[in-house]
Amino acid sequence: MTRTVIAQPLTAEAFAPFGDVLGVSGSPDKIINAGRCGRFHDRARLDFGPEGRAGISIFESKAVAFPVEVDLVERHPEGSQAFVSMTGHHFLVVAAPDEGGRPGTPQAFVAAVGQGINFHRGTWHGVLTPLHEPGLFAVIDRIGETPNLEEYRFETPYRVEPGPDVVEAGLIEAS
Amino acid sequence: MTRTVIAQPLTAEAFAPFGDVLGVSGSPDKIINAGRCGRFHDRARLDFGPEGRAGISIFESKAVAFPVEVDLVERHPEGSQAFVSMTGHHFLVVAAPDEGGRPGTPQAFVAAVGQGINFHRGTWHGVLTPLHEPGLFAVIDRIGETPNLEEYRFETPYRVEPGPDVVEAGLIEAS
Repeated sequence: MTRTVIAQPLTAEAFAPFGDVLGVSGSPDKIINAGRCGRFHDRARLDFGPEGRAGISIFESKAVAFPVEVDLVERHPEGSQAFVSMTGHHFLVVAAPDEGGRPGTPQAFVAAVGQGINFHRGTWHGVLTPLHEPGLFAVIDRIGETPNLEEYRFETPYRVEPGPDVVEAGLIEAS
Repeated sequence: MTRTVIAQPLTAEAFAPFGDVLGVSGSPDKIINAGRCGRFHDRARLDFGPEGRAGISIFESKAVAFPVEVDLVERHPEGSQAFVSMTGHHFLVVAAPDEGGRPGTPQAFVAAVGQGINFHRGTWHGVLTPLHEPGLFAVIDRIGETPNLEEYRFETPYRVEPGPDVVEAGLIEAS
């Protein structure tokens, strides 16, 4: 039997167990460029492990549509991984708590335009799931030579559907 | 007398003296996520100096309109600095060669939707100049305690105007 996960709007509070929301919140930490620009400083907990370094890669992914089936999650034991849409589109974010080395029940979030995310090192998460084409993302993650991918396939897939808050927020069109 | 700089579309070749263009070009280095996603791997020369580390900050800047007056450039001796629009808008990029410790004549580029940039460590550049509001950017740069900003004010400002290629490419509307 398929189990259902309801996707909610992405907020820093709800996403805190899994990582950081990249976006403006509160007041800028510093005003720069002769008053023209606010800097929200150092908003992600980056961690590239003892053997790694930071890199910027570009991901180009096919888009998906609700309902989204999630049968596979992965984690990167050696590094954090941040995603920023390069086309200003919202996207689906799936993450799961760790329960004794395996992923627990996933949670799902829809990132709004202007929101990115950073998965903390070792966090179980679904693969990149853009909701619009082109699914073009800047990815700030660990560059290194040692293994950095662990995958887990759920015996019974989860089916992710948008919650009413997501529809109301205009993050997807109602079907 | 004001001097004019013609902004051209951003290409990796033209921008190479100043930094990296972040975007898809050529074939992906790796296909991931069960064939659904291409990874263009490690596309920026990041350098955060001996005392720094990588961070992700958010910049929110007022937009500008052509013609854009450039009287100030800056550089970061301790680190590279990358900019990705979080709203999928194009933006103006101004950079200048170093000539004996001072900036030479600036060059100007318009980044298309889906293009980001990474200024190499120590490169003279103009401040962030979004061409659309909200001017929301993910900035990957150096986090550290030691000074990392050098500014230079031109005695005579430059006036940046869009070239015909920029208008033809649809990067701005013709005035």
